[in-house]
Amino acid sequence: MGNDDKLEYIKSKIGTFPDFPKKGIVFRDIFSALRDPTACKYLKEVLVQLVKEKCPNAEIIVGLESRGFLFNFMVATELGIGCAPVRKKGKLPGDLISVEYVLEYGKDIFEMQANAIKPGQKVIIVDDLLATGGSLKAAIELVRKAGGNVIGSFVVLELEDLHGRDKLDCDVYSLIKY
Amino acid sequence: MGNDDKLEYIKSKIGTFPDFPKKGIVFRDIFSALRDPTACKYLKEVLVQLVKEKCPNAEIIVGLESRGFLFNFMVATELGIGCAPVRKKGKLPGDLISVEYVLEYGKDIFEMQANAIKPGQKVIIVDDLLATGGSLKAAIELVRKAGGNVIGSFVVLELEDLHGRDKLDCDVYSLIKY
Repeated sequence: MGNDDKLEYIKSKIGTFPDFPKKGIVFRDIFSALRDPTACKYLKEVLVQLVKEKCPNAEIIVGLESRGFLFNFMVATELGIGCAPVRKKGKLPGDLISVEYVLEYGKDIFEMQANAIKPGQKVIIVDDLLATGGSLKAAIELVRKAGGNVIGSFVVLELEDLHGRDKLDCDVYSLIKY
Repeated sequence: MGNDDKLEYIKSKIGTFPDFPKKGIVFRDIFSALRDPTACKYLKEVLVQLVKEKCPNAEIIVGLESRGFLFNFMVATELGIGCAPVRKKGKLPGDLISVEYVLEYGKDIFEMQANAIKPGQKVIIVDDLLATGGSLKAAIELVRKAGGNVIGSFVVLELEDLHGRDKLDCDVYSLIKY
């Protein structure tokens, strides 16, 4: 089965919830798809293939709390590299670097351990969703503060109407577009 | 290399932060280890082997927000099954079931989509840490509310002094003990 058919299958399993988390927002629910073993298998295959094709020289993978964590460790072990998960404020010990960002619905602070990324290290970032681009933009800024070189970002779902990728000055790859 | 050597290697990479997140608590930091590609590789190998050995007939895997998500999708795809991630209150759309629980430092509510688990489905639960057992106990309760049959729980780190496993009426497997 080709990647287009696999992605079509995954998309058919994604749930749609209008007016969540607030009125006017259509929530695309990846968890509806993750319940399905075949959707999980296809998602892993397509995502790993894309990362290997676009960023074969990646040295560490950053995942965004919380749903980005689902793919962070999986992709890291498939590539044979390490993980550097980014967390919301107050959850990480040690010396930290942080960045504030604006979400589709709210505001938050991302933190990362100051020694999580080595200066010059080639970094890829993974998350489930590209909406307005606020969280991914903040993560890119955070990685650069740490001295990392962002060579690509990967998301499973992209809401094209929100033009999130226009905010991002790195290559962004998405699997499924709405 | 045997599993004991792999676990010894992973343990050597885990960070220790006294008095985090509050005085008197020693925080064992798995993120220090995840930065290391070899630790990630060994952790995947040992965890997947243990799950396959102890619960080969698992039908779906539940991961606890947030750090449990790191292992949720990875184990699901290695076993060829689906995921049912459990989230903190307010983040999931649709019909939900919920349960309140007490943490080592605080109180929270876990939620899961009401149709995430089919009645009678054989469920395994994965998380990074077993401390007082509050969050794992709540997750087990939540899965049972959904009609699922918890056949085993897996954690990477166990803080034995806190006797968390005494609260849990299902088989609990931990990789690294303190």
